[in-house]
Amino acid sequence: MSTFGLIEYAEASPEVRAVYDDIMATRKTDWVNNFWKALAHDPAALRRTWQTAKDVMGPGALDPLTKELIYVALSMSNQCDYCIASHIAGARGKGMTDEQLRELIAVVGFANSNNRIVAGLQVEIDEQFKT
Amino acid sequence: MSTFGLIEYAEASPEVRAVYDDIMATRKTDWVNNFWKALAHDPAALRRTWQTAKDVMGPGALDPLTKELIYVALSMSNQCDYCIASHIAGARGKGMTDEQLRELIAVVGFANSNNRIVAGLQVEIDEQFKT
Amino acid sequence: MSTFGLIEYAEASPEVRAVYDDIMATRKTDWVNNFWKALAHDPAALRRTWQTAKDVMGPGALDPLTKELIYVALSMSNQCDYCIASHIAGARGKGMTDEQLRELIAVVGFANSNNRIVAGLQVEIDEQFKT
Amino acid sequence: MSTFGLIEYAEASPEVRAVYDDIMATRKTDWVNNFWKALAHDPAALRRTWQTAKDVMGPGALDPLTKELIYVALSMSNQCDYCIASHIAGARGKGMTDEQLRELIAVVGFANSNNRIVAGLQVEIDEQFKT
Amino acid sequence: MSTFGLIEYAEASPEVRAVYDDIMATRKTDWVNNFWKALAHDPAALRRTWQTAKDVMGPGALDPLTKELIYVALSMSNQCDYCIASHIAGARGKGMTDEQLRELIAVVGFANSNNRIVAGLQVEIDEQFKT
Amino acid sequence: MSTFGLIEYAEASPEVRAVYDDIMATRKTDWVNNFWKALAHDPAALRRTWQTAKDVMGPGALDPLTKELIYVALSMSNQCDYCIASHIAGARGKGMTDEQLRELIAVVGFANSNNRIVAGLQVEIDEQFKT
Repeated sequence: MSTFGLIEYAEASPEVRAVYDDIMATRKTDWVNNFWKALAHDPAALRRTWQTAKDVMGPGALDPLTKELIYVALSMSNQCDYCIASHIAGARGKGMTDEQLRELIAVVGFANSNNRIVAGLQVEIDEQFKT
Repeated sequence: MSTFGLIEYAEASPEVRAVYDDIMATRKTDWVNNFWKALAHDPAALRRTWQTAKDVMGPGALDPLTKELIYVALSMSNQCDYCIASHIAGARGKGMTDEQLRELIAVVGFANSNNRIVAGLQVEIDEQFKT
Repeated sequence: MSTFGLIEYAEASPEVRAVYDDIMATRKTDWVNNFWKALAHDPAALRRTWQTAKDVMGPGALDPLTKELIYVALSMSNQCDYCIASHIAGARGKGMTDEQLRELIAVVGFANSNNRIVAGLQVEIDEQFKT
Repeated sequence: MSTFGLIEYAEASPEVRAVYDDIMATRKTDWVNNFWKALAHDPAALRRTWQTAKDVMGPGALDPLTKELIYVALSMSNQCDYCIASHIAGARGKGMTDEQLRELIAVVGFANSNNRIVAGLQVEIDEQFKT
Repeated sequence: MSTFGLIEYAEASPEVRAVYDDIMATRKTDWVNNFWKALAHDPAALRRTWQTAKDVMGPGALDPLTKELIYVALSMSNQCDYCIASHIAGARGKGMTDEQLRELIAVVGFANSNNRIVAGLQVEIDEQFKT
Repeated sequence: MSTFGLIEYAEASPEVRAVYDDIMATRKTDWVNNFWKALAHDPAALRRTWQTAKDVMGPGALDPLTKELIYVALSMSNQCDYCIASHIAGARGKGMTDEQLRELIAVVGFANSNNRIVAGLQVEIDEQFKT
């Protein structure tokens, strides 16, 4: 049960509908996933977050699939079940293969392990890394 | 001051030297960074971690740069200062540009934000994401 | 299924009942939520945690609602589903409005984003912040 | 040593200066802290993050001090040293007293403890919290 | 619904079966838990992870129960529900009593609290701890 | 620079001195580490935290060294540098050997890796773990 409930298209204000329309047009789909419907109770946050999604996750020096892979990896690391499920779907929609996902999961495990081994070993930063 | 101190090449056992040699040969460099020197007090862990590094971070369905970008992103998310500094250097060595790094940092921020907004909104997983 | 099961009032020892009674009296309710029933298998922990709750979350230089808002925000950040659900209820009981909750969620997202952007940028602490 | 270095006002582009000017005007100060100078290498991120800061952290259903307290608490929970130092300063500038900060730290400790005790006890969400 | 589904023994490749056989022989059980079945889609990761499990979690300077207790504690701290459930079972199989588990949960709460209080207080490391 | 500064014994109130005295007597040392001196600005928190330390970390079904090992492991996982340094010292004082510490670090890495691999694989809890 979502905190404020989900706002469906039929009951949405014009302002919210405009964002939903843009989400569907940008993604070339005919539905909007629950994250946006749950966020729509705060129209300013909805608009800002969707705008940031377009600015941050769109094509640039990194391609959208690479950005999506990074997003998936962070969501796994942060134990966000919804984000894992939704962004695995998103990454698959952008072309991620099962083999890529398996390798990504291995990197997530390895980095999370080493991040703490480094803490445990209290490793000082090498001079070479400071420039 | 590292937990057990750093083991330099000159004082390393043959077993540890063999790993150091492989690190330098694989990376085509003439030095070994502090993480490995701090870990070398546990030769089995040194060997296992380096072997995993080669297995997990090497070429596959994802290229080594993409894996390194994911590793950097996770290290930022996990607040591991050493890992951030060393893997930014590693990613640059694999061709990461400043522009790519800037976009990566933006994705790290965005995913970390949304991972918690989702928790706050208690969003249920869409049926479409369950298959 | 809770780790040790839940201890209901009817089956509780006098020591545990005394805490339950104090919880209900303090909160002016006629029920005790599952957290305390799950913790009651360790009566010393139950007593200590409830005492700390009264000491830390009660009125002081910060009012109880502000403390509850902080608690909710931390629970979202830490991905504790039970804590989010129970402390949103607690905060509402102390007067939190939906609008306040929406703004709180926005702050949670923003801080979690910036906490990692700062890590990625490896920002040094300004001299002005050191005094 | 910040990842890309800090962009000082004198060397900033007009676009970056406009944000710096707005930061100083909004905060009624004559300096800009390192976070923004480190972020300024990505002018779009600088503008977006500052705009979000104004939207999210400004007056609303929650007053700016309460929002700042929440931000400080999250930064402590996330182990972001820079954020702790800079936002304690920010909160003090908005009127936070030492006594309030001490109580906030106690809440941060308490919530972080209980968030994990709940996980360890595998507590199910009470029906009462689901509506 | 697991990301790639679960690979049951009957449908497993000889390579995967060999690991399953070793898991059951080592643990003296006749079944394999879902973690390994979910990981088996990446046979190299399955082999590597199981080998590391044997190397890291087996007898050494720390006995297997102590290692399992540490693993349980970390899983609680990291909010991994599956890991909490499976490793509590594993620890009980190695002799953990309910009383030990209750004390472990108390330590998990206490350390998580203090880890953040320390951050909030910005405590400098004592000279005595640097040697 | 600690948030409120450190309260040395000579300038401490009788209430704070009583806790310092008990810390030194319990630990059989003639000094108090910075954590307590930084916390002493909140005498109630000082007293409560020290009392909890004695209750939670003292002998019980788990011996004090095992509890200290768990505490160290959690501090590594949570990236608390002060806690790592101070509790490694504490564990050594209770008899922890270097070999035990190396094995502990390996467990910390392994659990942190698997905690996220499990998230990535979205593993369902086995029926056997639910009883």
